[in-house]
Amino acid sequence: MDFSRIGQQLNVRTGINDLMEDMYEAIYSGRPNLCQLNGGAPAMLPELVRMWRASMERIMEQGEFESLVCSYQHPRGHEKFIQSLVKYLNDRYGWGITPENVAVTQGGQMAFFLLFNLLAGEGSPKSEILFPLCPDYVGYQAQSLVGPSLFRGVKPRIQRLGNHVFKYGIDFENLDIRPETAAISLSRPANPTGNVVTDEELDMLRAMAKAAGIPVMVDNAYGQPFPDITSVPCNTVWDENMVLSLSLSKIGLPGTRTGIIIARKEIIDTVMNAVTVSALCPNNLGQALVEPYLADGSLDAVCRDVVKPYYRKRAAFAESLLRQYFDDELPWHVHKSEGAMFLWLWMDGLPIPVQELYERCRERGCYVNPGHHFFFALPPEDRGWRHQHECVRLSFTQPDDVLHRGIRILAEEVARAYKEA
Amino acid sequence: MDFSRIGQQLNVRTGINDLMEDMYEAIYSGRPNLCQLNGGAPAMLPELVRMWRASMERIMEQGEFESLVCSYQHPRGHEKFIQSLVKYLNDRYGWGITPENVAVTQGGQMAFFLLFNLLAGEGSPKSEILFPLCPDYVGYQAQSLVGPSLFRGVKPRIQRLGNHVFKYGIDFENLDIRPETAAISLSRPANPTGNVVTDEELDMLRAMAKAAGIPVMVDNAYGQPFPDITSVPCNTVWDENMVLSLSLSKIGLPGTRTGIIIARKEIIDTVMNAVTVSALCPNNLGQALVEPYLADGSLDAVCRDVVKPYYRKRAAFAESLLRQYFDDELPWHVHKSEGAMFLWLWMDGLPIPVQELYERCRERGCYVNPGHHFFFALPPEDRGWRHQHECVRLSFTQPDDVLHRGIRILAEEVARAYKEA
Repeated sequence: MDFSRIGQQLNVRTGINDLMEDMYEAIYSGRPNLCQLNGGAPAMLPELVRMWRASMERIMEQGEFESLVCSYQHPRGHEKFIQSLVKYLNDRYGWGITPENVAVTQGGQMAFFLLFNLLAGEGSPKSEILFPLCPDYVGYQAQSLVGPSLFRGVKPRIQRLGNHVFKYGIDFENLDIRPETAAISLSRPANPTGNVVTDEELDMLRAMAKAAGIPVMVDNAYGQPFPDITSVPCNTVWDENMVLSLSLSKIGLPGTRTGIIIARKEIIDTVMNAVTVSALCPNNLGQALVEPYLADGSLDAVCRDVVKPYYRKRAAFAESLLRQYFDDELPWHVHKSEGAMFLWLWMDGLPIPVQELYERCRERGCYVNPGHHFFFALPPEDRGWRHQHECVRLSFTQPDDVLHRGIRILAEEVARAYKEA
Repeated sequence: MDFSRIGQQLNVRTGINDLMEDMYEAIYSGRPNLCQLNGGAPAMLPELVRMWRASMERIMEQGEFESLVCSYQHPRGHEKFIQSLVKYLNDRYGWGITPENVAVTQGGQMAFFLLFNLLAGEGSPKSEILFPLCPDYVGYQAQSLVGPSLFRGVKPRIQRLGNHVFKYGIDFENLDIRPETAAISLSRPANPTGNVVTDEELDMLRAMAKAAGIPVMVDNAYGQPFPDITSVPCNTVWDENMVLSLSLSKIGLPGTRTGIIIARKEIIDTVMNAVTVSALCPNNLGQALVEPYLADGSLDAVCRDVVKPYYRKRAAFAESLLRQYFDDELPWHVHKSEGAMFLWLWMDGLPIPVQELYERCRERGCYVNPGHHFFFALPPEDRGWRHQHECVRLSFTQPDDVLHRGIRILAEEVARAYKEA
C-alpha cells in the first residue's frame, strides 16, 4: 500500500514504538517476575487517587456528569478549568496571564507534537528545533511530520561529582542558534536523566533566545507547581517569549490525556486552530477532576507533602540498590537525581553497545530503556559519540521487590559485559 | 512570528473555525433568544445519559475508576473495549475482524485527520483524496497538513422529488479515479445533507476502488450499528479494502472524544504509529462507559427504540416548520432526510450569496451554517457553480421553540432576499 510521506515516516520504527510495545508485551506476556523498569507510568498514589475519586463523586452528585460527557467544549478547553488555572498560576507566579494565553491539548505528548510542527519544518521559514542538552525525551524523536531532521541537539558537558555520581550541564560554548532555528526546547526536570537545568542556565538560554527572536519551550511535565517532582531549586518561569507545557499525567491522570500550553496569544491561537482542525476540542475529564483542587489551592499541599517526598524516597531507594548490586570497582555513574521519575545510569567504556545490554536484560525478564534513543537530536557528526551507547534509563516507580530483582539483573549483565571484554 | 508551512496553513480561517467560534460566541454572548441551528452537538437524551451515568457508577463501585484515570492504555485503545467491540461487530456483520483491525482515536475528527494525512499528500506517491459526492463534512476542509489541495470532489446529480424535496446522487459519469488518487472518502449518512448514499451506489464505489487498488473510507458517525440515525436502508459494510470510522459522539459522548477505525492491519498499524507518536495512547473514558453495553448488546435496543425515533421525529418536525414558514411559491427545496441530524436547504436562484443570508440571520440571532463551506473539495473549475451559494445546513436538535424562531427568521430573510432582487 502506498502511504504518504508522513505515513511512511511514521512507519519507521523509533524508540517510542519500542518503548510502548515493550510495556504492553510485558503486561500481557503472562511471564512471571517481569521487571518493568522502562516506561513512564506514574505511581498510583492513594492520596491522589482519593482526590480524583472525590472529584468524580462530586461531579456525579451535582449533576455535572451529563455536560462532562455529553458536550463539546471550547477548542481552548473547559471554561471553568481555564479560569481556575489562570488564577492559580497568576496567584503563585504573578505572570499576568489571561485565558488567551492557555490551550488544553490531549496530553503533553500532543502539545509538543503540535508545537514542533507549527513552528518548524522542512521548507518552512525555520527548519529546526534546538535541544540545548542531549539526551532528552525519546517521545519527541518521531514527531516531525515534514522531513526527518527537525531536531538538532548539543552534547552536554559532563561533570563528575565523585562517588559514582555525575551531572550534565549545557555546553554554552557549542550552543549556536542559527538562522534556521525556530525554538529552543528542553524538558525540565529532564526525562530521561533526572537533571534539572539550573535557573542560571535557563536564564542564559532565555537571554540568547530573546536576542535571536525565538521562543524557549519548556516541557514542565515533572516540574512546579504540579507535580513538583524536584529535589533542587527549579523555578518555573514564564514570559511572552516562553512556551511552557504542563501535564496532568504525573499527578496520576495519564489515562485522561490532558496537557496544557501557556504561551503568548499568537502561539495559542495557532495551537487552537490545530486542535480545532484535528480534534474539534480536547476531552473534558482530566480538567473537570482537577479544577476544584486548583480553585481551592489544595493541589499544592498534596504535591508538597505526598508526591514530592514519595518520588524523592523512591529515587534514594533505587540509588541505594545501585550501590548494593553494582561492583564498586566498575566505572558506573548515576546522574544526580534532581527530579522526574528516572535514574540515568552511565557505564563508562561499556564494552558492548547498550542495545545489546538491553536485549540481554530483556531475555532475563528485566526491561530497561537503552539510552541511545534519547540522543536522537544529535547531528550526524556526533553519531559516533560512544557515551550514547553507554547509558540506560531506569524508572523507579515499581515496587521494592521489582526494583531489587531488576537492578540485580542489570548489575549482573553489566558486570558480565565488562568481564567478557 | 515565523510559523512553519503547517502553522501558516492552519492559521488560514476555514469553515470549521467559523463554526466552532459561532457556537461559543452564541453560548457565551448572553444574548437572549439566540437560535443555534448551527453546530453538530447531539441531543442529551435522558435514556442515553442514564446509561453513561450507570456505567460510571459501576466503574466507581467496582474499583475500576483508578485504572481508568491513572493508567496509560495500549496505543490501540482499551483492551476490554476492543475485545467487546470486535465481538459485537462480528456477531452482527460476520466481518471476521480481530483486534488487529481496530484502532481508537481521540474523536472521529482525529480519525480522519490521521487517515487523510497518512494516505495522501503533496510530494507523496498519492496526492489526493476523492470525494465522490460534494458537499461533505466541513470539518475535513483544513485537515491537509501538506499543501492546500488534498481533496478533489465531484458535483452531485440533483434529483427533484417534488413537493419542495430533492436528493443528491453520485455522478458516476464524471467520477474518475486518477493515478494520484489515494482513497475515496464519504460520510454516510452524510453531513451536511442527511443524504444516504445508497447501498447500490456504495457497491459501485467499492468495485471502482477495488479495481483501482485504493480503499474506500466511510465516515459512519451517524450510521449503523450505533447511533443508527437513519431512516432508509443503509447497510454498514466492511472488507479489507474499506476503512470504516465509528464515533461515540452521537450516542451522547462527544465530551469524551472517542473515535474508532476499522481497517486492514497495515492501515491500523500506521494509524497506531501516528497515535503513539502524537499522543502515546487514546483516553479511556468513552471506551469504558460504552463497553458494558456492547458486551451485553443492549446498545442496539436504545439506538433502535430511542435514538433513531428521536431524530426521525425531530427531522419531521423541522421539515414541517419549513413548510409552515417558507413561502410555497418560492423555489426552496429540502434534501430528503435520510439520516444524520441536519436538514439541508437549497434555495434555487437565491439572489444573494448564502454567506450574506447567513450574516443577515446572525444579525437577528439565528445561527445557521452557510452551505458553500461544505463544497470545499470542488476543483477550481467548479468554483463558479452557483448551487454552492444557495444552500444552508440546519441542525434540528434544538428545542421546539428555538426551531420555530430560528426557521421563521430564516424564512423571512429568504423571502426578503428574493423580494428585493
